[in-house]
This record gives sequence, structure tokens and C-alpha cells, in this order.
Amino acid sequence: MNKRTTIVMSQTMLPSQANPAGNVHGGEIMKLMDSAAGAAAHRYARCNVVTARVDELQFLYPVFVGDFVTCTATVAYVGTTSMEVVVTVDVEDLESEDPPKRTQTAYFTMVALDKDGKPKKIPPLSPETEEEKILFAEGHQRRLEREKRRAARNA
Amino acid sequence: MNKRTTIVMSQTMLPSQANPAGNVHGGEIMKLMDSAAGAAAHRYARCNVVTARVDELQFLYPVFVGDFVTCTATVAYVGTTSMEVVVTVDVEDLESEDPPKRTQTAYFTMVALDKDGKPKKIPPLSPETEEEKILFAEGHQRRLEREKRRAARNA
Amino acid sequence: MNKRTTIVMSQTMLPSQANPAGNVHGGEIMKLMDSAAGAAAHRYARCNVVTARVDELQFLYPVFVGDFVTCTATVAYVGTTSMEVVVTVDVEDLESEDPPKRTQTAYFTMVALDKDGKPKKIPPLSPETEEEKILFAEGHQRRLEREKRRAARNA
Amino acid sequence: MNKRTTIVMSQTMLPSQANPAGNVHGGEIMKLMDSAAGAAAHRYARCNVVTARVDELQFLYPVFVGDFVTCTATVAYVGTTSMEVVVTVDVEDLESEDPPKRTQTAYFTMVALDKDGKPKKIPPLSPETEEEKILFAEGHQRRLEREKRRAARNA
Amino acid sequence: MNKRTTIVMSQTMLPSQANPAGNVHGGEIMKLMDSAAGAAAHRYARCNVVTARVDELQFLYPVFVGDFVTCTATVAYVGTTSMEVVVTVDVEDLESEDPPKRTQTAYFTMVALDKDGKPKKIPPLSPETEEEKILFAEGHQRRLEREKRRAARNA
Amino acid sequence: MNKRTTIVMSQTMLPSQANPAGNVHGGEIMKLMDSAAGAAAHRYARCNVVTARVDELQFLYPVFVGDFVTCTATVAYVGTTSMEVVVTVDVEDLESEDPPKRTQTAYFTMVALDKDGKPKKIPPLSPETEEEKILFAEGHQRRLEREKRRAARNA
Repeated sequence: MNKRTTIVMSQTMLPSQANPAGNVHGGEIMKLMDSAAGAAAHRYARCNVVTARVDELQFLYPVFVGDFVTCTATVAYVGTTSMEVVVTVDVEDLESEDPPKRTQTAYFTMVALDKDGKPKKIPPLSPETEEEKILFAEGHQRRLEREKRRAARNA
Repeated sequence: MNKRTTIVMSQTMLPSQANPAGNVHGGEIMKLMDSAAGAAAHRYARCNVVTARVDELQFLYPVFVGDFVTCTATVAYVGTTSMEVVVTVDVEDLESEDPPKRTQTAYFTMVALDKDGKPKKIPPLSPETEEEKILFAEGHQRRLEREKRRAARNA
Repeated sequence: MNKRTTIVMSQTMLPSQANPAGNVHGGEIMKLMDSAAGAAAHRYARCNVVTARVDELQFLYPVFVGDFVTCTATVAYVGTTSMEVVVTVDVEDLESEDPPKRTQTAYFTMVALDKDGKPKKIPPLSPETEEEKILFAEGHQRRLEREKRRAARNA
Repeated sequence: MNKRTTIVMSQTMLPSQANPAGNVHGGEIMKLMDSAAGAAAHRYARCNVVTARVDELQFLYPVFVGDFVTCTATVAYVGTTSMEVVVTVDVEDLESEDPPKRTQTAYFTMVALDKDGKPKKIPPLSPETEEEKILFAEGHQRRLEREKRRAARNA
Repeated sequence: MNKRTTIVMSQTMLPSQANPAGNVHGGEIMKLMDSAAGAAAHRYARCNVVTARVDELQFLYPVFVGDFVTCTATVAYVGTTSMEVVVTVDVEDLESEDPPKRTQTAYFTMVALDKDGKPKKIPPLSPETEEEKILFAEGHQRRLEREKRRAARNA
Repeated sequence: MNKRTTIVMSQTMLPSQANPAGNVHGGEIMKLMDSAAGAAAHRYARCNVVTARVDELQFLYPVFVGDFVTCTATVAYVGTTSMEVVVTVDVEDLESEDPPKRTQTAYFTMVALDKDGKPKKIPPLSPETEEEKILFAEGHQRRLEREKRRAARNA
């Protein structure tokens, strides 16, 4: 189950990914998170997917050139044609025994597309473990909040 | 005034920015938005800045290789050490008279940093035109909502 | 009118665009200028275009990583199938009130192409403002000089 | 134990990594393998490392744009200052249930460096599981063969 | 002698260097030409150099992804602190016996810099063969023309 | 003859090719070697080729940002559908009279492909000069050794 809903992508951050201040460009991290969200949703839906929105993307700590970065994307909640993917980034110092540090978190909403680029129905997600059930309920809750917020803005 | 708070970045999307489906990689657009938000906040605060969070990043339409893309970042609301930057992306078809199409919108929260990387006080924003005042009030409102939401999650 | 003949492209120069000396690679600036010239000609001609030649490209000041660079391309003169595009690059220090500094200028000659890649007739340019008329006359003059020079070389 | 000696890096192959034939450039795969070997050796030795040699790098199947690629690097054998890292690449079709396909394998020899760039002693590897013991013995055997071959060439 | 004044750079053009039309981006060719001019001037002057201007850069034929491109840069004329470098690009079809085709030519003016970034005197060029003498005389002639043209513009 | 079997590729190493330690990423060198091997085999076979294996790739010295690097690839031995290409990398200090330094060597095995991606027969190589004959004999010898080693592993 887990394997089906989670993608892990790791890489060492290179100088070509730096911003002028010498840290890793926030946009490079966002690109990595988007790639991981896309791969997780792609594998779950077994079809092409696009990013519809990103919410609450938090940058908790800066990432440095040379950092070994692990991005984890998990399909948390599944609607009719869209999925909420929880994406986290952790940084590990390869020269120490210190545990990895959480540097970014975000919620990506991905939509499955058919061959004509139209939204496509995807199989429902049946959470099994306790952890999956919580993840699913939280994802559902966030989705409802987003819809309410959107409705309020447009009112 | 406007000049001080708004940055505009344009570019033609290249094949090297494509995803495997042939469209422009969502992560490339996010990197462009982050660069524009950073430049707008950098110019407003006159010091180094970092991205603290991104909210409600919406992908309204896909972007294609060859599209002429314009990313606009405007400092909407300013707190003690942080700024909310409204970022939009518009795509123009260079071969037609059609008006540009809005493809992405998002709210970036940027924090000003001093030489030691600590949050730094920035001058307050005094909105003057009617439009600026609305932008400021909405930015303030979004900020309050984000804080309330964060408090609710942690409760 | 102006909108139709001018393209502005801005970006913050990144470490990945540096040369071994640590400044921005001259070739990266040339690539930016070529992109802007191409977009301006593309929008004017409403069809695909190619660069035919670049003249008098001057590097007045070095550009540094972190500089906020604005490249402006204006269709100055239009022949039967080709356009002369005046391209300038200005650098702004985002942390100061100093006005931008002109760092590069050049004249690009772009040719409009039809679907088969053959030169294609484009609508004539009717300069209206005084500034446009001067720009047009100067562009015409430079074109005549280039043709004379070419003839002299081949004699 | 395993965690200490193995690094896994995954990514979706992008159009910017293609060769002119449209497949993924072999050099991009080699760069990914070198990065993974470097990270695995870096974590084992807890210091900077360099690639000293690559042996028997086999390309078993082509890799395509859009493929989800997983590169696994395991420190197999450890000498006084050098490590042999076994690197494999597997490709998974995200749209099918098919198991991943092994596309590349190679043996990387990495050397640990101290602050002055001189070879540095590293802790010995004590294989514990049966699998680790076999990996270690094979790594040792390959190393002896390489030394013999080198001696023969120079004779 | 020749070795001292000429640099040759070759590469196969990759999809990541394409423009939206699918050909090689003119800016990529310009970057290659600038790199070759810089390396030739760097080797002649034995010190850091910068590009001061580019003249009469002609695009004679389009370059395609997959083309094997050879860029040749030769120091033609040497002044007190600056050099004129003649740069040509030739494309060879690796699958045929056809001779390479000249696709671009340009004249680069490079300036030698000392450690403080100030123009630095460089050894004079003493052309020896008939070919070198012609190259030198032509370079000198072009330089005089450029100075005259510049004087005329500023008059 | 020589021209037909040898490709030379040179470039100045850029900051965008660095690893976190600031040297040139080993993977960038490997990509350059693979490109040169591919171009040499492509020109010899006059058809598309793929890398089948790389053997005894030795990193003799580190390569630094700013180094002027020359990669030479020579088709040494030719079988029915495959070629062994000897690839070397040399680094030249453009500011000194020192001769270039050999930094990498490797043996690439390339396979010729027909339009359907199947191995394709290529013309035999008839070494003429003494040097070519030695190269051919050594290439043949290495191939036999590789086959023996492979057989031993699989036994």
C-alpha cells in the first residue's frame, strides 16, 4: 500500500542550484517538491497528472549547497479526479550522526488527465492503517477548508 | 510608488524547461514566481530576503514551450520584518492580438534578513492610491487568516 | 504602438550564469539579448523569426551575480522581410536608490519566416511619435552602412 | 547498518536531459550514478570524497524521457583510504504494475580526502549479514583483479 | 605560433540548447562563440580577459539539435591592451562525407585585465606567415573603421 | 584516416559544472567523455550509436572551474556492430607555458544502431600506421579480456 502512495526523491544540492546569496534557490526546492508530487500522483492514478494548486508551502530552514536532501510525497486524500499530496523535504548532514531536519512542507493538489487533457476519474483511496486513516481525514478536512475559503473570497 | 513595490519579469519558455509531457514544468513556473517575489521584496526592503511561505498557488491554465510569460510581483502588505507579495503569471500569444491570459496566482511571504541572517525590521508600507489600500487590507486579512489557521492546527 | 514594438525582459542573475571569474558570462547576456530581440520581432511580425546578424554589441560594464538585469528590445526599422531591433541591457542595484546603469547595447537584424522557413513579407512600420521617427531613420541609416560595408568587403 | 552504507536517489528524467536521439543522454545517467556513489561514500567516510575510477559500467537498456529512475549506491568493500561502491540504476514505469527494470550497473572506487585534499584513513567495514559478507568478498576480489590488470598493463 | 593564437571548441548540440522552434537557440551559439573568443584571448594574453564588443556577427545557416559544431577563435590583431578575435562556427554532418558548412562568423574585441580589473598591456603580435600577416592587417583595418564609425556617431 | 576516427572536444569548465566542493563534478567530465565517444563512433559508423559499456575510467587528477579541458575520442577497435573508443581528457593552464596534463582516460564500447534500434553492421577498421595497428591490437586484446571476465562472472 505504502509503496503505491509514496515517492521518495533524494539529491545532493549543487552550486548550479544556488541563489545569489549562495544558499539553494527556493525555486529549486519548489521544483523538486513539484516533481515528487507529480510522480506520486502519476503512480497512484496510473495516468498523466498536472499540478492544480499548492497550499501552505512552508520554508522552515534554509537549504545549503552540498546538503543531501530527501523529498517525500504521499498521496493523502483522493477525490473524484484530484489528489492531495503531502510533500516534505528533509536535509541530512552526511558528515554527522544527526537525524535529518525537516526544512519544507506543503500540500499539492494534483489532477489526473485523460489522453485529451480532460480531468479523469481515479480509483478511490481506501486508507488501511491508522496512520493512513488520519492522513486521509486531515486531507479531506484541508480540502473542505480550501473550498470554503475560495467560496468566501468569491462571495 | 508603484515602481518601488512591483517587479515584472518576462521570458519566452524554452524546451529545456519542459516536463516529460512537453508542457512547461510546473516547478519552472514556481521558480520564476519565487524569483520575482524575491526581487520585489529585496527592492522594497533594500536588503537580503528569504521565502518563508507560499499560499494558495493556483495553476489556472497550462503553460507551453514558446509561450511568452510575464510574472508580476507586488508587495501588498508589510509587517515588522515580513512582507506579503502577490504574484501573478500571464501568458501572451505573440502571434495574435488576444489579451494575455492569467495562468498562475499566489501569495508569497518573504522575510527581510540582516547581515547575520536574522529577521530585520523594514520600513512600513503606506498605501496611497485606492488600489494600494485595498491590496494592503486584503494582504492584512490573509495574514490574519493564516495565523488563525496555524493556531487551529497546533491547538 | 509602443507596446507592439517593445519587449522588456528582466531577471536576477544567478550563480549558474557565472563565468570562471565569478562575473556573469558574457554569453549569458548575449543569450538574453537574443531572446528579447526574438520576442520583439516575433510579436511585430506575428510569425516565427530568426537572427540574421548582430552588430556593434558593446559591453560597457561587467554584470555581477545577483544583479537585477532588464533587457529592452525595440523594433526600430522594418524592411521587406527583416527588422532591425535595438537591444539594451540595464542593471539595477535593488538595495540602493541609484538609477539603473546601461551595461550593453546592440543592433539585431531579425528575419521573418513562413511555415516553410522562407523569408516572409512583414507589414511596414509607420513611426508616429518623434522618437519613433528618429529611431526609424537611424535604423535605416545603419542598414545602409552595413550594406555598403558588406559590398566593400566583397569587392 | 544498511542505512549507513546505502544511498538511494530517484528522479523523473526530463527533456533537458535528452540526447539528440530523444533518449536520456548516457552522460546524464553517469552523472546521477557518480552523485549517488559520492553521497554513499561521503556518508560512510564522514568526509569529502573523490571518484578515483569507474569499472564495468554497463548500459543494459536505454532510458527514456519521463522514466522514473532509481539509482542505488552501496559501499561494498572498504580499504585503507578507498571504498568500492556498487551502483545500480532501475527504471519503473509509473503507469503499470510491472516491476522496475535494471538498466545500468557499475563499480565506483571512491577515495576519502582530508582537509588538505590528501587521502585519509577511513573506518574498516565489518559486514554482518550474509548478503553484506558476499558483497564485501566480491568487492575485495574485484579490487585484486583490477590491481593485477593494472600491473600487467604496466609490465 | 598558430597554436598560441587559435582555440578550437567542438560539441554536439543537445535538445536542452533548442529554442521553441526546435532549432538551436541563437543565444547558445553566441555563448559558445564568446567562450572560444575568451579562451583564445586568455591564452594569448596569459591573463583574465573580458569581452568589450562583438561586431558583424552573421548567422549564415540555422544550426540543428544533433549537429556537430566546431567553433574556431583566432587572435587576429593585437593592440596595447585589446585583441581582435575572429570567430567562426562550422557544422559537420557526422553521417555524411560532406565538408563542414560555415554557419556563423564574428569579430570579438577582448580586453586583458590585471588583478584589479584594469586594462593590462599585452605582448605585441608579430605575424609571421603570409596568412597571419593578412589576418593582422585586416584586423587592424576593421579596428580603424570601428573607431571612425564610433567617432562619427558621437560627432 | 585519423580525421575519420578521432573527435576532439574542448571547453572551459564553468561554475555551473562544479560539485559542492567547488571542483568540477566528476559526472560532468563523464558526460563530456560520453559525448566525445558518441560523436567519434557516430562519425565512424555513419549512423546512430549508443553507449554499451565504459571500462577502466580513471580519474588521475581533479579538474577545476576555469580549466580549459580537451577531450579526445579515437575509435581504436571495430567489431561487427560495436566499436571500442579510447577517450582521454587533458587540462591546459591557459596562463602558463606548461604542457597539458592528462586527467582522465577510459574505454567506451559503442554499438551502431539501425533505424529500428537494432545493432547494425559497420565497416571494418583497417589500421594503417604503426600507431593505429598497436591501438587496434590493444583494443582487440581488451575486448577479449572483458569477454573472459564476463564469462568468469557468469560461470
